[in-house]
Amino acid sequence: MKQRIVVVGGVAGGASAAAKARRMNDAVEIVMFEKGPYVSYGNCGIPYYIGGDIAERDDLFLVTPETFWDRFRIDVRVNHEVLRIDRTKQLVVVQGPDGEFTMNYDRLILATGGVPLRPPIPGIELAGVHSLWTIPDGDAIMQFVQSLSANAPVAVIGGGFIGLEMAEGLHQRGFDVTVVEKMEQLMPPLDAEIAAYAVKELQDKGIRVILGDGVSAFEAAAGQLDHICLESGEQLPASLAIVSIGVRPETSLAVDAGLELGGTGALKVDEHMSTSDPRIFAAGDMVESRHRCSDTYMRIPLAGPANRQGRVAGHNAAVDLLASPQERLAFQGVLGTSIVRVFELALGQTGLSQKVAEHLGLDIQVSHTFSADHAGYYPGSRSILVKLIVERPSGRILGAQTVGAQGADKRIDVLATAILAGLTVFDLEQLDLAYAPPFSSAKDPVNVAGMVAGNVLRQQYRLLSKEQLQAHPDRYCILDVRSQAEWDAGHIPQAVHIPVDELRNRLQDVPTGKPIVVYCAVGQRAYTAYRMLGHNGFSDLYSLSGGWQLWDCILDDPNQEPTTH
Amino acid sequence: MKQRIVVVGGVAGGASAAAKARRMNDAVEIVMFEKGPYVSYGNCGIPYYIGGDIAERDDLFLVTPETFWDRFRIDVRVNHEVLRIDRTKQLVVVQGPDGEFTMNYDRLILATGGVPLRPPIPGIELAGVHSLWTIPDGDAIMQFVQSLSANAPVAVIGGGFIGLEMAEGLHQRGFDVTVVEKMEQLMPPLDAEIAAYAVKELQDKGIRVILGDGVSAFEAAAGQLDHICLESGEQLPASLAIVSIGVRPETSLAVDAGLELGGTGALKVDEHMSTSDPRIFAAGDMVESRHRCSDTYMRIPLAGPANRQGRVAGHNAAVDLLASPQERLAFQGVLGTSIVRVFELALGQTGLSQKVAEHLGLDIQVSHTFSADHAGYYPGSRSILVKLIVERPSGRILGAQTVGAQGADKRIDVLATAILAGLTVFDLEQLDLAYAPPFSSAKDPVNVAGMVAGNVLRQQYRLLSKEQLQAHPDRYCILDVRSQAEWDAGHIPQAVHIPVDELRNRLQDVPTGKPIVVYCAVGQRAYTAYRMLGHNGFSDLYSLSGGWQLWDCILDDPNQEPTTH
Repeated sequence: MKQRIVVVGGVAGGASAAAKARRMNDAVEIVMFEKGPYVSYGNCGIPYYIGGDIAERDDLFLVTPETFWDRFRIDVRVNHEVLRIDRTKQLVVVQGPDGEFTMNYDRLILATGGVPLRPPIPGIELAGVHSLWTIPDGDAIMQFVQSLSANAPVAVIGGGFIGLEMAEGLHQRGFDVTVVEKMEQLMPPLDAEIAAYAVKELQDKGIRVILGDGVSAFEAAAGQLDHICLESGEQLPASLAIVSIGVRPETSLAVDAGLELGGTGALKVDEHMSTSDPRIFAAGDMVESRHRCSDTYMRIPLAGPANRQGRVAGHNAAVDLLASPQERLAFQGVLGTSIVRVFELALGQTGLSQKVAEHLGLDIQVSHTFSADHAGYYPGSRSILVKLIVERPSGRILGAQTVGAQGADKRIDVLATAILAGLTVFDLEQLDLAYAPPFSSAKDPVNVAGMVAGNVLRQQYRLLSKEQLQAHPDRYCILDVRSQAEWDAGHIPQAVHIPVDELRNRLQDVPTGKPIVVYCAVGQRAYTAYRMLGHNGFSDLYSLSGGWQLWDCILDDPNQEPTTH
Repeated sequence: MKQRIVVVGGVAGGASAAAKARRMNDAVEIVMFEKGPYVSYGNCGIPYYIGGDIAERDDLFLVTPETFWDRFRIDVRVNHEVLRIDRTKQLVVVQGPDGEFTMNYDRLILATGGVPLRPPIPGIELAGVHSLWTIPDGDAIMQFVQSLSANAPVAVIGGGFIGLEMAEGLHQRGFDVTVVEKMEQLMPPLDAEIAAYAVKELQDKGIRVILGDGVSAFEAAAGQLDHICLESGEQLPASLAIVSIGVRPETSLAVDAGLELGGTGALKVDEHMSTSDPRIFAAGDMVESRHRCSDTYMRIPLAGPANRQGRVAGHNAAVDLLASPQERLAFQGVLGTSIVRVFELALGQTGLSQKVAEHLGLDIQVSHTFSADHAGYYPGSRSILVKLIVERPSGRILGAQTVGAQGADKRIDVLATAILAGLTVFDLEQLDLAYAPPFSSAKDPVNVAGMVAGNVLRQQYRLLSKEQLQAHPDRYCILDVRSQAEWDAGHIPQAVHIPVDELRNRLQDVPTGKPIVVYCAVGQRAYTAYRMLGHNGFSDLYSLSGGWQLWDCILDDPNQEPTTH
């Protein structure tokens, strides 16, 4: 009798695992049970389908059960829920459309994913209150929105990935969208000053953003969701609410079988994606992953890790059962790299955020730089904000965040690669990246970020963060070295204004008595001014990290004087 | 008396050096001599100005001499040629508009750049035969093209960066463009099968490409350039010829001063950008650079390295002269990373090409993979070709090349970062890159390239190159596992056709007696078929690297069956 691999869950991790298992071992039976009606679909695309960017629902279906059989001899059974694992007998108990049955396994791969959080808020069971995770969830929302009038008020509860994508999608459908986030910022994995760009972009598009407020009740009128009571007391009109406040790992099957959980509450696996039972592997949103920067464990419910973990789990389950077992693959961990599009903007992250690094007690340096995504003289150039979180004094890059209308994805991927490799900011200065005017500048935004952070770590330059200056404005003399036009368009209230090109002749006008914080639009002229002041007897100098643009949450300042060098 | 840094050359390397020198040392005089009329301009933008993408000539001027003075107290003197260096007296002899004079220096920074090659071909002195390197060159071409009739025949001699950019620009201006390249491929730094995509793109736009032919004479009629005599005997009509066959380093000043040249003919510098005279630094196109992969020296006349070298040279010249000298910066070398846009396509390169790696006698593995630049179900997805050149058996990445309409620049930068860090293909499998449907796929093209090359290095998979199969088609049984529609649209003549989903039931139809080469569109179905055949008693298997798309030089095959996993 053939040996058998059973896969539980047929979306990202499970489908990858099954296909890889077949490629490694043609002699085993492979059966994949999926609780829902579909396998291997593009669940990350559902918000874009609801928003209309993806026109055809069929486009979301990547592979059918028939393809799995024809190509891989994988027996896919949708609408089959695995109820129980009997590890002693090595079998699963399955509820199918025709009743319950058991099936034995030689290796089991769990990829049961996650479940959207649905806290017991009064009224959450109302018909107009939806979550989005699966195709049926998406279908239900699509059906519901057909019943809404144009411009109906809708609320998105939770400002994470899915929340922001849904806010955009529902806005595109013509609804009057409000985003409600319990924390004081959107996109909690990002640092606050970066996430602020998402708030601004949403507001610019006419979406209301409510931060630091939660839902106390969903209330109906005439049997329909009518409004949302917020903890602040506000009543927010809403005909539809999308609750997207996070997902929990779906571990009940594993827990019932006595498999070990990790400290995060997700399933514990080793680098081979093996659970505490060596015959059972797991992958995807249900497991916890080692963060390569902090060596701590975390939950990363994202499709990229799920696919790569599935490949490893499938490989290892399959090679275990070969007549002559082959070497296992290892999954080395994650960086938490992610990206979200918010209308025109992309916001990317990799590695540790500043707040996580500080929470871990690491000695870090942070920098913010704005650079053009491609040569300023070539049409269509836009600004990218790069934030680095750097270990002191080594210069090793621990984390990065980027914001931009173009090329923010490219720079976060370069930085994710640099972090995985253990590179320092001094290496970033040396990166030999591809330059032609349509694609980058002779000094790429990543080079520039490395050079600025490198200058700081070489103690040639000190940065003060926006938060530090906001917290204690009176401790500093603030010096604005921008042009008159830029100053006139807006400046930090307490600042003194001396344009950089006049500074040499006006050193006597530089305020003294306190540490001096110099700023310009992005930091380039401030650096020049800072160095000049330092050479001319001024000490206790800072440059405002990210300059006026970060201060005022601007990405491309139309008033900015063109500069280089 | 103040100490003085003299900079010779005011474009990329020189301007960077001068600005950095000022920031490191405010006490020195800095004088920058530029032979031409302009400093610090966007010379990489000139082809796009000629083509019309950059509408205003003024956009190319980044910084004026006045800015250098006001901001940096750098005394910029354009139209000043440094004639001679007296190293003993530490002075330069300068020819200015008002005559010859000398100026002493404490540190000298040379950034004299390169000069376009102008071989002594008969007729090369004709008015219609131009080179492009500087703003005056661009002005001369712009003036000349005004005199040409619409649709006039123009020839670009040399198919490198500038040649291809000029071909596109002149095509956009409405001329009838032919590109003539002496080698058998365009873009000599790329491998031939990659450069073939540039040929196809140019041809698709109506540009004629002549490979393997050179110019024997430029001939005039009625005092005007009329045609070009090629070595093949062809007479190519041409009212304008752009000669862009390369640049030589402008080292005459350095050589006359007795500074040491390297083996490449460019100036030799150490990692501090110091020449053989410790008081003289150099940067940019005139110096040779260490290639980080091969540890050999090469000339890289590109703006990126020039700017980064200039920064290092300026820093080091300046800190040498401080009362208490600070630590020098080092320039660690180059990867030869570059990118060129050819109409819709971008072609990128980093590290060693296959041909250079083979020339160096390295034991390498090559792979070609095609993947969507972003999720196939999200609109506008296009294919990217990634070629890896990998050290055997370590898996260390030595080089990479990419082709694509979107995102080829991102992937070459990720790979350049990976190469600089010494990563292997096994690391590429693990890269945690940013995924959301508009930006990438759950397995990024770089992950996919790493997984395929990783499978090969784990000896689970063998690739045969297009060149190997073309050279010896009779040595192999060729098996096409694509769909009927794909087969009908075109296939390798000697191939046998068994769609992958039928293969399991038709194993008896698989040809035997010779090694089997499996192919599909890009390699994914071929991998499935390859593994299945291997598990079912077939040995001596290969997969055709890059599949049908590389074979037929296709990037996005409209006939390709959608696949995943």
